[in-house]
Amino acid sequence: MKPVNVGIVGLGTVGSGTFNVLYRNAEDIARRAGREILVTHVGARRDHPNADTSGVRVSRDIFAVVDDPEVDILVELIGGTSTARELVLKAIANGKHVVTANKALIAEHGNEIFAAAQKEGVNVAFEAAVAGGIPIIKAIREGLAANRIDWVAGIINGTGNYILTEMGDKGRAFDEVLKEAQALGYAEADPTFDVEGIDAAHKLTIIASIAFGIPLQFSKIYTEGISHITRADVAYAEELGYKIKHLGMTRQTATGVELRVHPTLIPERRLIANVNGVMNAVMVQSDAVGPTLYYGPGAGSEPTASAVVADVVDVARALTTDPNNRVPHLAFRADSLSDTPILPIADVVTGFYLRMEVKDQPGVLAKIAAALSDADINIEAIIQKDQLDANSPVPLIMIVRQVLESKMNDALDKIRALDVLAEDIVRIRLETLGP
Amino acid sequence: MKPVNVGIVGLGTVGSGTFNVLYRNAEDIARRAGREILVTHVGARRDHPNADTSGVRVSRDIFAVVDDPEVDILVELIGGTSTARELVLKAIANGKHVVTANKALIAEHGNEIFAAAQKEGVNVAFEAAVAGGIPIIKAIREGLAANRIDWVAGIINGTGNYILTEMGDKGRAFDEVLKEAQALGYAEADPTFDVEGIDAAHKLTIIASIAFGIPLQFSKIYTEGISHITRADVAYAEELGYKIKHLGMTRQTATGVELRVHPTLIPERRLIANVNGVMNAVMVQSDAVGPTLYYGPGAGSEPTASAVVADVVDVARALTTDPNNRVPHLAFRADSLSDTPILPIADVVTGFYLRMEVKDQPGVLAKIAAALSDADINIEAIIQKDQLDANSPVPLIMIVRQVLESKMNDALDKIRALDVLAEDIVRIRLETLGP
Repeated sequence: MKPVNVGIVGLGTVGSGTFNVLYRNAEDIARRAGREILVTHVGARRDHPNADTSGVRVSRDIFAVVDDPEVDILVELIGGTSTARELVLKAIANGKHVVTANKALIAEHGNEIFAAAQKEGVNVAFEAAVAGGIPIIKAIREGLAANRIDWVAGIINGTGNYILTEMGDKGRAFDEVLKEAQALGYAEADPTFDVEGIDAAHKLTIIASIAFGIPLQFSKIYTEGISHITRADVAYAEELGYKIKHLGMTRQTATGVELRVHPTLIPERRLIANVNGVMNAVMVQSDAVGPTLYYGPGAGSEPTASAVVADVVDVARALTTDPNNRVPHLAFRADSLSDTPILPIADVVTGFYLRMEVKDQPGVLAKIAAALSDADINIEAIIQKDQLDANSPVPLIMIVRQVLESKMNDALDKIRALDVLAEDIVRIRLETLGP
Repeated sequence: MKPVNVGIVGLGTVGSGTFNVLYRNAEDIARRAGREILVTHVGARRDHPNADTSGVRVSRDIFAVVDDPEVDILVELIGGTSTARELVLKAIANGKHVVTANKALIAEHGNEIFAAAQKEGVNVAFEAAVAGGIPIIKAIREGLAANRIDWVAGIINGTGNYILTEMGDKGRAFDEVLKEAQALGYAEADPTFDVEGIDAAHKLTIIASIAFGIPLQFSKIYTEGISHITRADVAYAEELGYKIKHLGMTRQTATGVELRVHPTLIPERRLIANVNGVMNAVMVQSDAVGPTLYYGPGAGSEPTASAVVADVVDVARALTTDPNNRVPHLAFRADSLSDTPILPIADVVTGFYLRMEVKDQPGVLAKIAAALSDADINIEAIIQKDQLDANSPVPLIMIVRQVLESKMNDALDKIRALDVLAEDIVRIRLETLGP
């Protein structure tokens, strides 16, 4: 068969990895794809020391690649949402198929992009946008096509997971580990995207759409970062049999879809609780197969390139396929997406870890327990620690299960009004991740 | 689009699960597939209390389904290799696509079946044949298409993993757990297929072919069961930081492909070491993405049905695709399969756990250490336990790394000749599963 011509735009970390993998493994890739995959045009605004492009056409004007009639598949790896959006829409208008690793672009502009692609009969593939090298888009869209998916939980930001792992394994403080991660190049100079959960929120937005057949709704996701997690909370959680992970969680309920990224206690016996360091994992609970889990590197040059190239092969195979027979962009046919609402966080039911530093007065525990009991909240586990010294507050740690967020907030307000707290309450959500 | 007509042959555990999932989730499956998937004909030689087939054509003569011109896709779920082979070849000759969950059929007759399918331009899909509901065939054939795969290691028999997990967690003996597993229905009355590794060998044969692009070569796999594993070895392994798992391992080396199923020590810090009970997991190490892992239920009615139905959807999507653009049966184009030889076990390099019950005599350790040292075998870790009483032998446990099997055998023969052993040596292979 005729070779497929690929244009790569952006030769940074992922772009150079993609270029290099396509060259190094060209023979094996051709044996699999049934035809050669050739990089015929590269767009790079800057020098690109990590890819040897000699013999390949290189344009400083990246739009030259989009307008190159020889290019069958445009691979967008410049990042950002403004120029990338323009570039991808232009490529689609030019009848080209697109492969992208750009999670922000898909989460924020995916509905527009897929509508344009649908109209032009081209394919936009984005496996690399979620969990790097783990083929999770393929697993959910195709591998689990028989299932009604109940929920998906993911550790989908390597930087955050590295920080929490170090805090747990070595009892180190958040700020200290973050500084080290920045020095090692795991974390950006501005770590907001990673530690405040925005990066994970982009990925989870995409996961929710393909799991439940709903449009992309990034603006409705609830996001909470990990910078307030203390060593003490990590240690208490472990004492109770839990690990704290920065979890992305999306669940289909009778009233809507939960869509949230926040620190979460999960039982240490779950496999996903043992996913450490910069690794990512996504757990899917669905009606026919039950629980499945997908694990691997969620970032990095060649891991992400692995997903980009797999998409290129998939798109190449489907070049001559009737668009109606291709896998739909959001797993379900565009005309059958559902308008199930995204639930506000107040309407979400989860468990909670609560830490209260209480004044050393008689009857404090009884008053707190009564406030929870009055709200029909059952305490599943409790630890009360000795005071460090006579004047310090007493740490009281509790686990509660299956409470509506708004009800929990009301109960905590009542406890605050009791005037028994030496500090404000720490609360971290909890998921058992059972069937 | 026109509905796709499916004929299901065999309504046992997996057949009834497939029938029921296709009915229960028909609407969501159609939203994904872009067309209805209808079961129009069922072949069942016996009554089938777990599937309500009212309104569906049912034939006691299963070959009537194969000869039904209305059937587009034949789903073979009768098991066994004799009638199943005949049925599948007949379906192919009749121009039908085939989906099967039959690992023995594919491992033993896959080369013949795929050649016939290739000739007729039809598709034979077999996701459910390996690791039940885990979409591992799809992950390797498509999700990792960019990679040169180094090795694949799998816990791919739930019964064996349940037995080893119980031995490890509760210190129970093999025979006791096996009897319980049989009573609970996890293990067959004749447990040979599971505990002697034949079931895992069928699955690993398939994995090796799609990972490395080699023909199916079930007759060349090395298989060793777990019935000789003792509580003592499980406990010593844990003391040294390892879990014993019944691992399927296939690796591409400079001289050939390793293909082997045997009890294996793996470091407890690896995620796959924490895969417990009846669950399955497959870990893949490859050049671009690095390590990835896929976890889920490896057997059962609806988990296996999940994989069967995903295949039906895939085959339905590719009905009108030029066969050259479909994913090749063994991941690589049939005309580009490699003749890389399967290595005999004597030529395999692994680590080893050795347990010697030695006579309580001066200089025994020195003699054994010298025998290993003479063969250039380094001891990485050693435990010597107190004698239980003055007359009992002394347990000596050693870990060695990266030794050629034949060299290990020679060294052990020399140790046997020393006349220091009270019992024969126990040796279990060891894999670090690192990059």
